[in-house]
Amino acid sequence: MPTLALERHTEHLPVVAAMKANVFRATGVFGLEEKPIPHAGFGEAVIRVNYTTICGTDIHIIKGEYPVAPGLTIGHECTGVIHEIGPGVTGYHIGQRVIVGAITPCGQCEPCLEGHLSQCGGALGGWRFGNTIDGVQAEYVLVPHAQANLAPIPDAVSDKDVLLLTDIASTGFSAAESGHIRLGDTVAVFAQGPIGLCATLGAKLMGASQIIAVDPDPFRLSISSRFGATSVMIPGSHVVPEIRELTDGRGVDVAIEALGTQETFENALRVVKPGGTLSSVGVYSGHLKVPIDAFGAGLSDVNIITTLCPGGKERMRRLMRLVETKRIDLAPLLTHTFSLDHIAEAYRLFANRDDKVLKILIKVGTN
Amino acid sequence: MPTLALERHTEHLPVVAAMKANVFRATGVFGLEEKPIPHAGFGEAVIRVNYTTICGTDIHIIKGEYPVAPGLTIGHECTGVIHEIGPGVTGYHIGQRVIVGAITPCGQCEPCLEGHLSQCGGALGGWRFGNTIDGVQAEYVLVPHAQANLAPIPDAVSDKDVLLLTDIASTGFSAAESGHIRLGDTVAVFAQGPIGLCATLGAKLMGASQIIAVDPDPFRLSISSRFGATSVMIPGSHVVPEIRELTDGRGVDVAIEALGTQETFENALRVVKPGGTLSSVGVYSGHLKVPIDAFGAGLSDVNIITTLCPGGKERMRRLMRLVETKRIDLAPLLTHTFSLDHIAEAYRLFANRDDKVLKILIKVGTN
Amino acid sequence: MPTLALERHTEHLPVVAAMKANVFRATGVFGLEEKPIPHAGFGEAVIRVNYTTICGTDIHIIKGEYPVAPGLTIGHECTGVIHEIGPGVTGYHIGQRVIVGAITPCGQCEPCLEGHLSQCGGALGGWRFGNTIDGVQAEYVLVPHAQANLAPIPDAVSDKDVLLLTDIASTGFSAAESGHIRLGDTVAVFAQGPIGLCATLGAKLMGASQIIAVDPDPFRLSISSRFGATSVMIPGSHVVPEIRELTDGRGVDVAIEALGTQETFENALRVVKPGGTLSSVGVYSGHLKVPIDAFGAGLSDVNIITTLCPGGKERMRRLMRLVETKRIDLAPLLTHTFSLDHIAEAYRLFANRDDKVLKILIKVGTN
Amino acid sequence: MPTLALERHTEHLPVVAAMKANVFRATGVFGLEEKPIPHAGFGEAVIRVNYTTICGTDIHIIKGEYPVAPGLTIGHECTGVIHEIGPGVTGYHIGQRVIVGAITPCGQCEPCLEGHLSQCGGALGGWRFGNTIDGVQAEYVLVPHAQANLAPIPDAVSDKDVLLLTDIASTGFSAAESGHIRLGDTVAVFAQGPIGLCATLGAKLMGASQIIAVDPDPFRLSISSRFGATSVMIPGSHVVPEIRELTDGRGVDVAIEALGTQETFENALRVVKPGGTLSSVGVYSGHLKVPIDAFGAGLSDVNIITTLCPGGKERMRRLMRLVETKRIDLAPLLTHTFSLDHIAEAYRLFANRDDKVLKILIKVGTN
Repeated sequence: MPTLALERHTEHLPVVAAMKANVFRATGVFGLEEKPIPHAGFGEAVIRVNYTTICGTDIHIIKGEYPVAPGLTIGHECTGVIHEIGPGVTGYHIGQRVIVGAITPCGQCEPCLEGHLSQCGGALGGWRFGNTIDGVQAEYVLVPHAQANLAPIPDAVSDKDVLLLTDIASTGFSAAESGHIRLGDTVAVFAQGPIGLCATLGAKLMGASQIIAVDPDPFRLSISSRFGATSVMIPGSHVVPEIRELTDGRGVDVAIEALGTQETFENALRVVKPGGTLSSVGVYSGHLKVPIDAFGAGLSDVNIITTLCPGGKERMRRLMRLVETKRIDLAPLLTHTFSLDHIAEAYRLFANRDDKVLKILIKVGTN
Repeated sequence: MPTLALERHTEHLPVVAAMKANVFRATGVFGLEEKPIPHAGFGEAVIRVNYTTICGTDIHIIKGEYPVAPGLTIGHECTGVIHEIGPGVTGYHIGQRVIVGAITPCGQCEPCLEGHLSQCGGALGGWRFGNTIDGVQAEYVLVPHAQANLAPIPDAVSDKDVLLLTDIASTGFSAAESGHIRLGDTVAVFAQGPIGLCATLGAKLMGASQIIAVDPDPFRLSISSRFGATSVMIPGSHVVPEIRELTDGRGVDVAIEALGTQETFENALRVVKPGGTLSSVGVYSGHLKVPIDAFGAGLSDVNIITTLCPGGKERMRRLMRLVETKRIDLAPLLTHTFSLDHIAEAYRLFANRDDKVLKILIKVGTN
Repeated sequence: MPTLALERHTEHLPVVAAMKANVFRATGVFGLEEKPIPHAGFGEAVIRVNYTTICGTDIHIIKGEYPVAPGLTIGHECTGVIHEIGPGVTGYHIGQRVIVGAITPCGQCEPCLEGHLSQCGGALGGWRFGNTIDGVQAEYVLVPHAQANLAPIPDAVSDKDVLLLTDIASTGFSAAESGHIRLGDTVAVFAQGPIGLCATLGAKLMGASQIIAVDPDPFRLSISSRFGATSVMIPGSHVVPEIRELTDGRGVDVAIEALGTQETFENALRVVKPGGTLSSVGVYSGHLKVPIDAFGAGLSDVNIITTLCPGGKERMRRLMRLVETKRIDLAPLLTHTFSLDHIAEAYRLFANRDDKVLKILIKVGTN
Repeated sequence: MPTLALERHTEHLPVVAAMKANVFRATGVFGLEEKPIPHAGFGEAVIRVNYTTICGTDIHIIKGEYPVAPGLTIGHECTGVIHEIGPGVTGYHIGQRVIVGAITPCGQCEPCLEGHLSQCGGALGGWRFGNTIDGVQAEYVLVPHAQANLAPIPDAVSDKDVLLLTDIASTGFSAAESGHIRLGDTVAVFAQGPIGLCATLGAKLMGASQIIAVDPDPFRLSISSRFGATSVMIPGSHVVPEIRELTDGRGVDVAIEALGTQETFENALRVVKPGGTLSSVGVYSGHLKVPIDAFGAGLSDVNIITTLCPGGKERMRRLMRLVETKRIDLAPLLTHTFSLDHIAEAYRLFANRDDKVLKILIKVGTN
């Protein structure tokens, strides 16, 4: 009987509920589509997204500069509530507010077990959202390795307060951490986009004394000063000699590269002291040249350290503590707000760097 | 002719100019005496002292609890101006304002060359002033290994601003540094004397989130809060369970011991998480017991790190940068001022912890 | 019909196959019992055990000195083949030869994600086998968190070659690693039981120059020399002055405590140089006293580092590489062989330290 | 009277004794000349040289590829006996056998005090001998900062045993040390000249398992195998895929660059695993290109660490301990012997890499 058959059908196959997702189709082609709400398999969870945002990397993807599979949902920064918990995931409950880092390590492969969480399973392997699996610019998102990645948001803080910890703050801070900034160190940060600004803040948090921020955008430099920069300057040939002068000829202890261009990399190398560290979080393309003179012919004990955004729930918990204890306030970075329905407009604004945009809060659902 | 002879005599033997110095004579016996102004031999310099202060260690010396040779000038914290530069010391000029760390490493022995500057030449060997050579509570002081220890004070900062860097700030900060505090870490600091307060400040400077300060003195705890403590508590049996609760049962990432008693050490061990660090800067006497349960029977991956005040001119320079860039202000610690002539009175006040005393500024000379 | 019912029963409930296991019953009471062969749930695997061995900790358990639940299978060191793979575990196949470390971290909790794998989920939490879950002195064993813990044995090496990596070599080596031994460092190792011997070997592997091994047993000291000790000595009041003399008065860079007694700990502290490291892997009981003089009153920049056996498949893989490339050969430690059926006899021999026993190979099954 | 005057003159000015020294005059022009034996000023010492050797850097100097002042004595590796001790240098005696590292840090400047001994006083500043002051290819040499640099040779070892510690062993080992090689790590070493061979030996000393050595010279590769390489290969396009295969696709934990060419640097980068370290001790010229794909676009957590030969007497002492305890034997590297009088011939042989030359022992004086 048809009716019975239908009933049996609904018993065995779940009704496929639909959700909106921002999907990459082809170079320059993306937008909201309907996709089925995902289900949580073993070790997974599904999050109902509250907030997401747009990253510079998303722009590269849209422009076809970073290849992802057509049909993939974009985005890797979100807050939300737990909607479904798969088997094998314990200690969480439905409805719990959480963030999930942009990088979602499994915790159980060889790279993870030796502490290279971002290189989970292989080079850059910890970056899954919007890269190798559906991302978070959607109403729901499937979280892989949920046990290692669901980070409950403390009651005292709002989703908006912690959204930016998932990528740019974790990345920017890691630039300072990988530089092993010591109390009283002098630091130069090249580029003051959202990540560079967080690197500036990270340098301050770690106890740097002098922090020199370099960026062509006066608005961004004004945030740099709020975030801890003691000197700001626009790029140009004056930068290297000026930083040398500001540091009494010593050079900086740590130079942070937060953009990924030849110029910023090279200037970072030229201002770092012998024995110092160039901490790089920029994304490079093409070829990168190392000027041998600035590199001391390889004999100046300079280290070049690269870091991909650290993820995992312990990282997220620790950074949320900084928000909870009011050590950091990332609100100045959230310059605009859009709903998910208007995300295309948000992309346009963000890609064009209009209206002093830094990061855009994308509201999803009715929260 | 006698006159001629006398003249020749004065040509060859310097007139021994006299200065005032605070000298240890015997247990309980100390005070200002006249001593000859020292002369700088090879690798040495003489400093005319501007300011000095009294340390808890000086009290131990006066009380006979820490043995030093009778006749020794006491004190290891000072600012001053260069009065004489010995042969082999370059890059300085007479009249230059400097600080010299309490610890004066030679930089050239085996321990120094492998980075253990405080253990210069042997255990605790870097601590010379007021311990193995004449100290700084005097109008002039001979600085050994001057090339490694004279740290020019930047024009923009006053002597008073940097005086406390020579010992208590360097020590207190090192408690945080040796604990390898990470961004967002939770820290408990046991005892909030001047060094403990600087440890609290150091923890904040390094990016700790939650900082729990423990001390019986409400005034000191009020300074703790100004210096970065997010919770303060008085000692007692409630401390361990309360800190466990404040950290959601995890324990603290880093526990700092800044006093040197069985109780503070033991509590520090009881609140540190598995895998965490107990960073100790207290000075212990008698026997110290390690409760095996709190020590995880030796299996909880806990580290106990001890640190003697880091010295040397590079350390001093780096810390002065924090003052110059206004990252730190140690003024709240200088609660009282005396002249050198009244130093005995200052000792009495400091030893009795009267009048909410923390550190006493001792003015020397006419500056 | 009964027959039909029985058939259906066998369809739905698996036949509970039995295996032999060495079970703790009460203080002094233990022995082989029949237990059901375990089944692999989510994230788990079952190993058919080839070889196991007895650890000093097992003796403590049998004697009631370390409390475990009656009925628990003892043992935490084994090699075997994969018998069953639970859902969610990928990249392995039935019949694959593997070792599993004594410590089986989940890789996904907060301590694991920050690198404290042995403190998985809480203090000492990574130690599950024979402590909080059934151990490996059995024909089969259920492996928790299998994805993080199954370490395939390279074809070129035998089970016997790698069995001791699961605990004593990983622990002994970690004593050297946690001590951060540098090329040319001087090391003293107190106690030369299996773990101490591996610490001696670890010190050699890391490039120590002088390695001084201390133990009362001449046979063990003969193995010490084979494993890299450049000097051996029996305990006594001569130990501290002799080590001081051997190091030209400097003290050792790293002192390793591999027993867990007051005497060995104290001697380790007394011979370590200022700025040096006491690396402890002993298991302590009662109270431990820190003699203040040997501790430099807390001011000698000495670090006391404790380490619980590192586990996880990446650790096991890396150590197996040392066997595969013939950098290490642990065969001298396997002094005796018994079958599982005679494990009680093996315990007696091991507990009494008869017949120059170091470690006993327990053969399980027919391999 | 003239005669009297002359006599008085000789009383006050020392008779200038002469010595032979190998002097750089102009590109391609160098050779033995007479120079006055130097005298030790404050903090200095004079060494009568027993043995010296020729370094690849000396060839660069002779060829005009590395600029030094005409008239400078070449060379930076020597053993000798103390001939004169300047004021302020203590703890040594005339006639004492010593080595002095190629790098002679002062120990007292800011870079030295923070541990960057090779960058003493500024970039590459620790390298003085044969660079900024007269070098050691002479009968006598003036040692600056003698207190920090005279390292007594233990009685049990000969000059020849320790000569190569002054530069190539210290440098080669530092390549392994800066790579933070862990027990069981996989290492690839690019180029097996004397420094590369010492890097191979250093990797073995630190406990690497698999060590892959790459060089076009079969003789050098035969030494590589003696020094610890588990695989050797000649350069070519096969190198990267072969190393990937040897490491089961993982890449090496640490890649060492010991030559300073684009090819070796690039191959090192291509074989290092995500999260791994490229440890570079090569001397580069021109421009160095970083291929972005091999660099993971800056996101693969790879670190590029550069190290200049560590010096100072503590370093030398520690390395000599390895010789004394027979952990290392560098004799295979000393392939030829010449007297100082025939140093020009030695240069020719060394520059042409004739006769399987690795390092040449230059005998000075009658020892």
